[in-house]
Amino acid sequence: MRDSAAGDVQPSLDLGFATLDLDRSRRQGLPEVVYGTGKTADEIVEIVASLVAETAGPVLATRIETDAAAGIIAGVAVHVGHRAHHDPAARTICWRPAARRTTNVMVVTAGTADGPVADEAAAVAAAAGLHVRQIRDVGVAGIQRLLDRVDEIRASDIVIVIAGMEGALASVVAGLVAGPVIAVPTSTGYGAALDGITALLAMMSSCANGVTVVNIDSGFAAAMAAHRLAIAIETRSS
Amino acid sequence: MRDSAAGDVQPSLDLGFATLDLDRSRRQGLPEVVYGTGKTADEIVEIVASLVAETAGPVLATRIETDAAAGIIAGVAVHVGHRAHHDPAARTICWRPAARRTTNVMVVTAGTADGPVADEAAAVAAAAGLHVRQIRDVGVAGIQRLLDRVDEIRASDIVIVIAGMEGALASVVAGLVAGPVIAVPTSTGYGAALDGITALLAMMSSCANGVTVVNIDSGFAAAMAAHRLAIAIETRSS
Amino acid sequence: MRDSAAGDVQPSLDLGFATLDLDRSRRQGLPEVVYGTGKTADEIVEIVASLVAETAGPVLATRIETDAAAGIIAGVAVHVGHRAHHDPAARTICWRPAARRTTNVMVVTAGTADGPVADEAAAVAAAAGLHVRQIRDVGVAGIQRLLDRVDEIRASDIVIVIAGMEGALASVVAGLVAGPVIAVPTSTGYGAALDGITALLAMMSSCANGVTVVNIDSGFAAAMAAHRLAIAIETRSS
Amino acid sequence: MRDSAAGDVQPSLDLGFATLDLDRSRRQGLPEVVYGTGKTADEIVEIVASLVAETAGPVLATRIETDAAAGIIAGVAVHVGHRAHHDPAARTICWRPAARRTTNVMVVTAGTADGPVADEAAAVAAAAGLHVRQIRDVGVAGIQRLLDRVDEIRASDIVIVIAGMEGALASVVAGLVAGPVIAVPTSTGYGAALDGITALLAMMSSCANGVTVVNIDSGFAAAMAAHRLAIAIETRSS
Amino acid sequence: MRDSAAGDVQPSLDLGFATLDLDRSRRQGLPEVVYGTGKTADEIVEIVASLVAETAGPVLATRIETDAAAGIIAGVAVHVGHRAHHDPAARTICWRPAARRTTNVMVVTAGTADGPVADEAAAVAAAAGLHVRQIRDVGVAGIQRLLDRVDEIRASDIVIVIAGMEGALASVVAGLVAGPVIAVPTSTGYGAALDGITALLAMMSSCANGVTVVNIDSGFAAAMAAHRLAIAIETRSS
Amino acid sequence: MRDSAAGDVQPSLDLGFATLDLDRSRRQGLPEVVYGTGKTADEIVEIVASLVAETAGPVLATRIETDAAAGIIAGVAVHVGHRAHHDPAARTICWRPAARRTTNVMVVTAGTADGPVADEAAAVAAAAGLHVRQIRDVGVAGIQRLLDRVDEIRASDIVIVIAGMEGALASVVAGLVAGPVIAVPTSTGYGAALDGITALLAMMSSCANGVTVVNIDSGFAAAMAAHRLAIAIETRSS
Amino acid sequence: MRDSAAGDVQPSLDLGFATLDLDRSRRQGLPEVVYGTGKTADEIVEIVASLVAETAGPVLATRIETDAAAGIIAGVAVHVGHRAHHDPAARTICWRPAARRTTNVMVVTAGTADGPVADEAAAVAAAAGLHVRQIRDVGVAGIQRLLDRVDEIRASDIVIVIAGMEGALASVVAGLVAGPVIAVPTSTGYGAALDGITALLAMMSSCANGVTVVNIDSGFAAAMAAHRLAIAIETRSS
Amino acid sequence: MRDSAAGDVQPSLDLGFATLDLDRSRRQGLPEVVYGTGKTADEIVEIVASLVAETAGPVLATRIETDAAAGIIAGVAVHVGHRAHHDPAARTICWRPAARRTTNVMVVTAGTADGPVADEAAAVAAAAGLHVRQIRDVGVAGIQRLLDRVDEIRASDIVIVIAGMEGALASVVAGLVAGPVIAVPTSTGYGAALDGITALLAMMSSCANGVTVVNIDSGFAAAMAAHRLAIAIETRSS
Repeated sequence: MRDSAAGDVQPSLDLGFATLDLDRSRRQGLPEVVYGTGKTADEIVEIVASLVAETAGPVLATRIETDAAAGIIAGVAVHVGHRAHHDPAARTICWRPAARRTTNVMVVTAGTADGPVADEAAAVAAAAGLHVRQIRDVGVAGIQRLLDRVDEIRASDIVIVIAGMEGALASVVAGLVAGPVIAVPTSTGYGAALDGITALLAMMSSCANGVTVVNIDSGFAAAMAAHRLAIAIETRSS
Repeated sequence: MRDSAAGDVQPSLDLGFATLDLDRSRRQGLPEVVYGTGKTADEIVEIVASLVAETAGPVLATRIETDAAAGIIAGVAVHVGHRAHHDPAARTICWRPAARRTTNVMVVTAGTADGPVADEAAAVAAAAGLHVRQIRDVGVAGIQRLLDRVDEIRASDIVIVIAGMEGALASVVAGLVAGPVIAVPTSTGYGAALDGITALLAMMSSCANGVTVVNIDSGFAAAMAAHRLAIAIETRSS
Repeated sequence: MRDSAAGDVQPSLDLGFATLDLDRSRRQGLPEVVYGTGKTADEIVEIVASLVAETAGPVLATRIETDAAAGIIAGVAVHVGHRAHHDPAARTICWRPAARRTTNVMVVTAGTADGPVADEAAAVAAAAGLHVRQIRDVGVAGIQRLLDRVDEIRASDIVIVIAGMEGALASVVAGLVAGPVIAVPTSTGYGAALDGITALLAMMSSCANGVTVVNIDSGFAAAMAAHRLAIAIETRSS
Repeated sequence: MRDSAAGDVQPSLDLGFATLDLDRSRRQGLPEVVYGTGKTADEIVEIVASLVAETAGPVLATRIETDAAAGIIAGVAVHVGHRAHHDPAARTICWRPAARRTTNVMVVTAGTADGPVADEAAAVAAAAGLHVRQIRDVGVAGIQRLLDRVDEIRASDIVIVIAGMEGALASVVAGLVAGPVIAVPTSTGYGAALDGITALLAMMSSCANGVTVVNIDSGFAAAMAAHRLAIAIETRSS
Repeated sequence: MRDSAAGDVQPSLDLGFATLDLDRSRRQGLPEVVYGTGKTADEIVEIVASLVAETAGPVLATRIETDAAAGIIAGVAVHVGHRAHHDPAARTICWRPAARRTTNVMVVTAGTADGPVADEAAAVAAAAGLHVRQIRDVGVAGIQRLLDRVDEIRASDIVIVIAGMEGALASVVAGLVAGPVIAVPTSTGYGAALDGITALLAMMSSCANGVTVVNIDSGFAAAMAAHRLAIAIETRSS
Repeated sequence: MRDSAAGDVQPSLDLGFATLDLDRSRRQGLPEVVYGTGKTADEIVEIVASLVAETAGPVLATRIETDAAAGIIAGVAVHVGHRAHHDPAARTICWRPAARRTTNVMVVTAGTADGPVADEAAAVAAAAGLHVRQIRDVGVAGIQRLLDRVDEIRASDIVIVIAGMEGALASVVAGLVAGPVIAVPTSTGYGAALDGITALLAMMSSCANGVTVVNIDSGFAAAMAAHRLAIAIETRSS
Repeated sequence: MRDSAAGDVQPSLDLGFATLDLDRSRRQGLPEVVYGTGKTADEIVEIVASLVAETAGPVLATRIETDAAAGIIAGVAVHVGHRAHHDPAARTICWRPAARRTTNVMVVTAGTADGPVADEAAAVAAAAGLHVRQIRDVGVAGIQRLLDRVDEIRASDIVIVIAGMEGALASVVAGLVAGPVIAVPTSTGYGAALDGITALLAMMSSCANGVTVVNIDSGFAAAMAAHRLAIAIETRSS
Repeated sequence: MRDSAAGDVQPSLDLGFATLDLDRSRRQGLPEVVYGTGKTADEIVEIVASLVAETAGPVLATRIETDAAAGIIAGVAVHVGHRAHHDPAARTICWRPAARRTTNVMVVTAGTADGPVADEAAAVAAAAGLHVRQIRDVGVAGIQRLLDRVDEIRASDIVIVIAGMEGALASVVAGLVAGPVIAVPTSTGYGAALDGITALLAMMSSCANGVTVVNIDSGFAAAMAAHRLAIAIETRSS
């Protein structure tokens, strides 16, 4: 079809069970990312193989259970032969990671149980070419752990703060740094933590100005938000 | 009636619209506190006059709107002639405040809008004889405001932390002090703050160990919890 | 006090009812913004006058009801004599707006009822020196209104999308642009719109990658998030 | 018993554990549909066999797990010998599908994970004799996928839109077509998607006029609503 | 702009505070309806005058408070001189009502307090040219009131059921009729009725197949859904 | 119409805005009760006058604001001349109260603020002919107030327990008495009391067996439940 | 200890992990019922054996999984040798059922999936000596199924209505019968049915007067409420 | 780093996946407690071994599943050779329990199913050196069980009340004792108990003054709150 605004081609590919947005890469700098939940391994293979064949840039699948990864990698290899990187902690597989870009991202977690969400954020951001560093388990119950490392955090272009329970770390970090803070509530905690809803609402209500929030446990969404920011940063700095 | 456990008298007084617990003072160290919401001025006068006449110790009415205070004070004076102290900011009236006790309480607020809740907490605690100090507007968005004053806070027997929005101050304070922390969520904030529910859930889910929480905007409940703690402290130290 | 990490001075000013974070401007590029709700006009005057006197850069008060604005402006003038800009639609007053910066922000609303939130976002962003343009009432029920203007939106560094009801505009815009998208749910709508909670949850759950979300009706938070992004952009491009 | 309004017989059949509404077909154009959840295979067999024996028209069982299907089909065959069609993706078994009617239905899904709900909608609608077409995975994150196919959608009598996460597809489709739109929220998504509650509330709050909504994941309810609409359409067009 | 799918013109009109969808009438058979809540009288006048001038067919404003109606009617008259019909019970004003169409709608309410929602539904449906009849206060607590009138209800093309509290009327009506049932939950009731949320959830969970639901108190949405159905009916029967 | 089960006449009266269930008295021992909220004074007058004229037994209107009562009483008098009893505390007006029956009901409240709900319960029960006694303000914070009066409570056929906040009184009373306990949650309290939802959920979850619950603040519902119980009691004892 | 009100002995038995209320039978006509969830088989055996040994009347255990039943029965037999009745559908075991009483209870369910809750209600009521009859699957989608059997229902002293989804059956039944109606919401349904919360809220909000409600899926609570009612009925009729 | 307030060292230890707060013991009288959920056995071993090696005082791990305990104990022994105490009921392992302190704590539960939460509270409090006694299963349904033991409860410095369902025990106990009451809602119950949310909200809304509340099922939090109180008590009494 023709883009009503600009007239350029916006191709898509109908696989019957899925309609691939082949224009995504041109429009947003990255091809569609394949969200593994609710898809069969065969569906994932077919989608990934199509994306590898039809688009440029990194092809990424998220929320891939460890058991399924080898089969998916092998299935894709049959079609297009590309090498894949599987990160079990992040539950991601990446084909053709992006070249290293200039923007750097700091991922900070409140507790050790927030680790898998940080792993996902880091893997997705790295696949997109961002430079990622991490600081773990510096929640506010022992705030000197955080204060010790403020300079490292301030030195980053973008900060992703990952916290469950009451999510207070997002407010404290946002009070200490000037740049963009993307908060990720996690489902860490129990009872009144409401599977992450409490942290989500708390981060939304932060007394620190300008904190933005993404969905619960979505390291992926935080990394993609960082990718969007990096586009703005790199467009201007290039 | 006879106390089933101890056999001592537990008097109560039936006013028709209310049944006063005249034994409260003996049992808990303070007479019943009169909660003004939902009671007419005449009812408050009759209850207060009865409590002043029939019990010893401070008689306290809370949630008294400023318009109604003078009439209540005058109405009570007709009956029992006692002097009253009206604190408009706290919305309290106190007759016969308690003698000064040895326990001291620090009331800390996150923002200026939390002030009225702190006023209620301070007025109720003072009526019960506790020594109260306050630090206001030291929320975590500018955490140096809090760190500057940690020594003052640590020097108190009991800390009451009052915060709305995401309520993060409770976790940070509890991480810095060793003694009891009573957290009061407030309805400060809007949208995702859910009229204080978010702060309540967040404080409940605090990553700092051993924070206890009372009802939204209830400076009163925090002060009464402090009174309970002070009984334990003073029993042992006497 | 001394900053534990960097050793530099972080002053604050205790007004009794408030503790001003005088270091905010150094730390985050803007002085504290005064949130008017829950503060008396006298308190606002005292805080603003102190910030004007003690800090550099724009001083901004938000959520100021129109009736109170003239009194506040006059009250501040007594102290420090600075000129003020009152924007009744945005409910803001600004003293010493920032110099024009290089980052531009596009504010897009779904419906006319979302206008006041857009006004607040625009006023706050402008006070911070950002360049702001607006497109109003291009909700998805008549999607050609949005498609007509995609090029304008894509030409901005940062997009703020403001929508109530089901909040679908955020997903559609984020699917069309590559750069950062900050979504603001509004309380527009009734019944199942739940005073903005539905739009908040929907924006959080967006199928478009990397949308970030701020609190309901908070044009302010969106503008401050844009300010944070602009710092990252301008740091790199300078 | 006698129908109080019309005097005609409204038979029902008491099986002890169930009371079959044998009049349903006369009253609504289709016999009772058997909802499999919470019933044993034996109960389903007995109900289906009774309906096949005592009523005319298609007999349909939904939410039948694949493991149970063969046993149910065999069990029913013992009693009445009718042929059955099992659709594992839709989790339905149909005996005696209806003759093809004149009304056509378009089923549109936002993502591949919404497929099973679409399968149920399509299977139930087809069993009722409606003509069904499907378009899959045209969510708003890549809106050109939808715009490409607007003409196909507009050519249908009835549109069923199936979407999880924020459910924005329902609003966009309803803005593009003139005829009836039945929205089905799905439990696709996580965190703030609240197992489909967010999509349900969002669809209810749609800015596009006249969207109607059925229960979460209920392809069945959407198909039955389409059946009701088709009765109105076909009554008038016959 | 050009419609990407069909190439035809889709005009819109930018009023600054609003962007009118002038193509709506061509696309959906009715011009944009003006939702009064959150708009000033001047804004409503400008929008209505533009729609009257630039489009054909009925122009309708809803949720207009009685105090504001005369001014709006007068304001519009200055511009385009058209006659208006104000229905205070429905809170609507209509200019140029549509010609009478062939589809008829029955509006049934459970209680007298649901009347205003029925008034809105009836006024909007009538403005769109549908033939409307009403039956009021036949809730299930005295079910003979409903059973007495089943034949009248069955004789309609479309049934709109309006009920608050537990909303049971929708299920009972849907069990008795074959055609389309649009359920409108209302905020009638208190306590556990949760301002209509309970009726909304109950109608969504109806044991009667194929009930569709619109937003709480939205007689407007129900009427627009009926308009959509009528398009399907009339397209086929013409 | 004819009752489908029993063949006897079930009259109803269509007033246009309301359909009166004239058979209610025969079927349930009391005519329809007129719920005042959401009805105009004229509507109430017309309904009451019709019920007085067309039915036997007590005619009761509830939730009548004090300002409206005299006008309603006068309006009804014009039509049918019956005497009325207005209870401002209960917000009820009763015409032709029932003769005294043999069943007695004890209404127990937890706090003075629960008084209006008790007033409504008592007025409605008395209008229905039940014998009502009350005990007020015996909440569990001073449990000797309740224990003192257990014998009185046990001597009643039916106990209605009215409590807000945490609603604990219902569990304690139900643990002490053998007969039926109807619990009424009230909206007394604030914050976590959630306008009565907390008490409702708590009473539902009572550890005392066999507590039944009615809607928040509904003294009316409790009295009607007592009326139902009294029918069972009196049927058997007569 | 001594009962403060009446002076009679109220024995309890401390088992370490449990404190048995041995006075329950005297106070409420039935010994404590053993709720199996969360207790080990050994704990259940010890509690049941103690109750059989120390009290009179039926001893009942509920929520006993089928796998555990034989072991519990055997374990109890070692201690006290009494015969037990295990009802797997109801998940109950009963020792020494009560003698048949005069009160009869009708249990009505809306759907076949509500059967297990009805089984529990019937088993508990029967253990308490009540006479129980059942009517199943007469939900309002085919209301003639219910109307056919109104006379049977009206002939009962007490009606228990069990329904999930929207729970409308409770309102319809309560509109048809005069005596006490105890409504039990069930977790039958999905999506908007919210695991029974929707039915609970709907039953609470019933437009039919005087419906009382117990906890979700609690056939037990309904039966115990019936037991309480039966005490009132039988006390008066004896 | 240097403590900004006091200048003393606040060491922390970075393990990569965790950052240990080695200063916790100095600051709060106890080293960090290791929360087992979401950590691998290897991570727990490494953390515990580090804490044993680097800090003084009791090292405690909570929420350790029984299967994992032996391996953890063995793993730690390899590193530091300390003896461990595993309490399977409490799911805790303790190394180097604290010396016996002077403060005593009474743990009271409402039902037998609340036992595991009491076990955790008791184990944690004992590890911290507090003297713990317990009373179990004295819920308010048989209130004489509680009244029998009031003197024992009153003799404690601190009372922890653990209850699920409606949580009424907290209010009743707090009405009977003068000292501090820490309420722990539990997830005991079903349906309207909402996995402990109902008890949490009810305890928050307690009519008994000064009850404080911790998170659902968190025996740990209650014990830590008791530890904080004990510090205040012992500081003053020493």
